[in-house]
Amino acid sequence: MNKLILFALPGNETMAARLATELSAPTGELEARRFPDGESYVRYHADVAGRDVVLVCSLDRPDAKAVALYFAACVARELGAASVGLVLPYLAYMRQDAVFKPGEGVTARHFARWLSGCADWLVTVDPHLHRIARLDEVYSIPTRVVQAAPAIAAWVRDHVVRPVIVGPDAESEQWVAEVARAAGCPHEVLRKVRHGDREVEVSVPDAAALAGYTPVLVDDIASTARTMVAAAGHLNAAQLAPPVCIAVHPIFAGDGLDALRAAGVAQVVSCDTIAHPTNGIELAAPLAAAVRELLPTR
Amino acid sequence: MNKLILFALPGNETMAARLATELSAPTGELEARRFPDGESYVRYHADVAGRDVVLVCSLDRPDAKAVALYFAACVARELGAASVGLVLPYLAYMRQDAVFKPGEGVTARHFARWLSGCADWLVTVDPHLHRIARLDEVYSIPTRVVQAAPAIAAWVRDHVVRPVIVGPDAESEQWVAEVARAAGCPHEVLRKVRHGDREVEVSVPDAAALAGYTPVLVDDIASTARTMVAAAGHLNAAQLAPPVCIAVHPIFAGDGLDALRAAGVAQVVSCDTIAHPTNGIELAAPLAAAVRELLPTR
Repeated sequence: MNKLILFALPGNETMAARLATELSAPTGELEARRFPDGESYVRYHADVAGRDVVLVCSLDRPDAKAVALYFAACVARELGAASVGLVLPYLAYMRQDAVFKPGEGVTARHFARWLSGCADWLVTVDPHLHRIARLDEVYSIPTRVVQAAPAIAAWVRDHVVRPVIVGPDAESEQWVAEVARAAGCPHEVLRKVRHGDREVEVSVPDAAALAGYTPVLVDDIASTARTMVAAAGHLNAAQLAPPVCIAVHPIFAGDGLDALRAAGVAQVVSCDTIAHPTNGIELAAPLAAAVRELLPTR
Repeated sequence: MNKLILFALPGNETMAARLATELSAPTGELEARRFPDGESYVRYHADVAGRDVVLVCSLDRPDAKAVALYFAACVARELGAASVGLVLPYLAYMRQDAVFKPGEGVTARHFARWLSGCADWLVTVDPHLHRIARLDEVYSIPTRVVQAAPAIAAWVRDHVVRPVIVGPDAESEQWVAEVARAAGCPHEVLRKVRHGDREVEVSVPDAAALAGYTPVLVDDIASTARTMVAAAGHLNAAQLAPPVCIAVHPIFAGDGLDALRAAGVAQVVSCDTIAHPTNGIELAAPLAAAVRELLPTR
């Protein structure tokens, strides 16, 4: 364990520092920048030979980040690292988990094969597991999935008076139920129909059951945030208290966050899987525990 | 050969159409776009099962393009393509061909391993082969390199009166000599010293030997174009005729082209390895010949 060293890809410095504290290990400097022609450049400013290297990189807006991560992992091996592990608090491409139309492919599988070829293990937080039920169906390296539910439940217990956990769709039911159970409060699930990438329609929940409670809207991925915006609008229309919105993965593409704030919500909070001003729920401790399980024992 | 079908990644439609004409083969539509969260999406709108698929994609500003290309290749295989070949008129990451400073890696090698894992063969134009002497040192799939020199020489013969081919540095000497030989004209080589990514100093050539000629500055990669700008400035200072500038790979990062045009040059012309307004020298014919050599024979 004393051979462990962590490196942050750009934008992941805070998470890397928190993980390093949890793991009682140092962080090293990884220079990762772009040449004028758009090519990625990586250079280690700490010795990695013989060490267990952990790379920390959230993969929102993933393509350029994934290339830099791939190079960082390959170069660590080239420089003689004993092992290379990936902490990817947000894992990309898990939503392309099936062929929906002719001519498509299961991109989740191809992305997984690429990353599996450059590292020894992978840790992430609540990946989108739907048609792919487990990461090891597509990743050939050992993986651990950290659940955000306990940390979210703890945050809700500490910050929300008389909460009811509200899930934005049927898919979220099991997960929302788990947060509610851990927080010791009830839960409710909205029903949604998706039209294309951006349009989402949300059906009426049982408003009477929510009266007197503070709705806590929880979703795994806030991308355009249109699902949450629609859900918030619906709760408002039903004259419920302004909801607290919690996203595990705060991507907030485009004007997602502005739209959500304009939807009459009380607060927007996120887990720190992606560095974002809404971060309020820290996951370094459970991530570090998962890393400990995967590090080589000697 | 009648099973062949070509697809352009975005921005490569012109080259794909020219190659298709040369190869008497159809092009198909490949939908390649981005989801709002920044993930790549690819979908074939033509049947690829049992066909020899050729993907055309120049890899300037490479990271996001390379991910889309990787997915397109993987999905073609997933959909049952008989073979998947890559025509990459500009091949990325060949300049990171050595460890220049401690903590770096040979990224060219890692990029090559990635691409080699998703396709059956690769064709490119004049890759930067310096410390890596041949593509097959790093690519594990069959490759063919198309030389731009004959097409450049033909263009010079047709368009320039009393040309002298001028190379921007010692590295270019062999290549510049080849263009000059094919064009039936003399050549001259400048000497350069590089400081960092953008700063380049160029030494004085034998100006007397160039008097009365039209200098034709030729370089393989015009990225920031600072090498060519410095060379053009130097030729002007020596009171030679305004040079014609020819780039094999017109990346023109940032204000590269503006800077070159401001340097008192007569004309800027490029090979069509990267779609660019300066394109004037077509390479579809030699690229098609290279593709024919690599296609599976049945």
